[in-house]
Amino acid sequence: MSADFYGFVAAFLTTIAFLPQVLRTYRTRSASDVSILMLLLFITGLFFWVVYGLQAHSLPVLIANLITLILNLSILAMKFIYSEKRNL
Amino acid sequence: MSADFYGFVAAFLTTIAFLPQVLRTYRTRSASDVSILMLLLFITGLFFWVVYGLQAHSLPVLIANLITLILNLSILAMKFIYSEKRNL
Repeated sequence: MSADFYGFVAAFLTTIAFLPQVLRTYRTRSASDVSILMLLLFITGLFFWVVYGLQAHSLPVLIANLITLILNLSILAMKFIYSEKRNL
Repeated sequence: MSADFYGFVAAFLTTIAFLPQVLRTYRTRSASDVSILMLLLFITGLFFWVVYGLQAHSLPVLIANLITLILNLSILAMKFIYSEKRNL
């Protein structure tokens, strides 16, 4: 197998991995066990990956990280919305 | 700024992001809001990134993903241990 094959499988898996987390958080209306600092660091890092993808003209890096960024922003948004509702 | 600069910042942030999650899970003894399917897909993806790093002789990819892999394996292990303890 070529290195690129492993790279594509890796990028696919680490991108779609966050979809079950989005669905779980939506279903359970809870993300209190998810570290807010993790989300903020990870989202900032993904933003830099997107910038890197643009600057290095790497479409796979750009697309994979853009999707991961959107999924993690959804988790962050739900964490805020659901924790606020519990405090009402 | 060069593309590489953004790449290094990105790799650093998306690697250390999981440290607060490890610490939170250890402190709260709970990871029930963390999707098991997310962890399994992400860990499998990280394993492929490590293989890609080895095959493509990319030390930054190898090191960053090896650290992220170890951190996520710790979260997975704690998820199992703490959920089992609650069921006793």
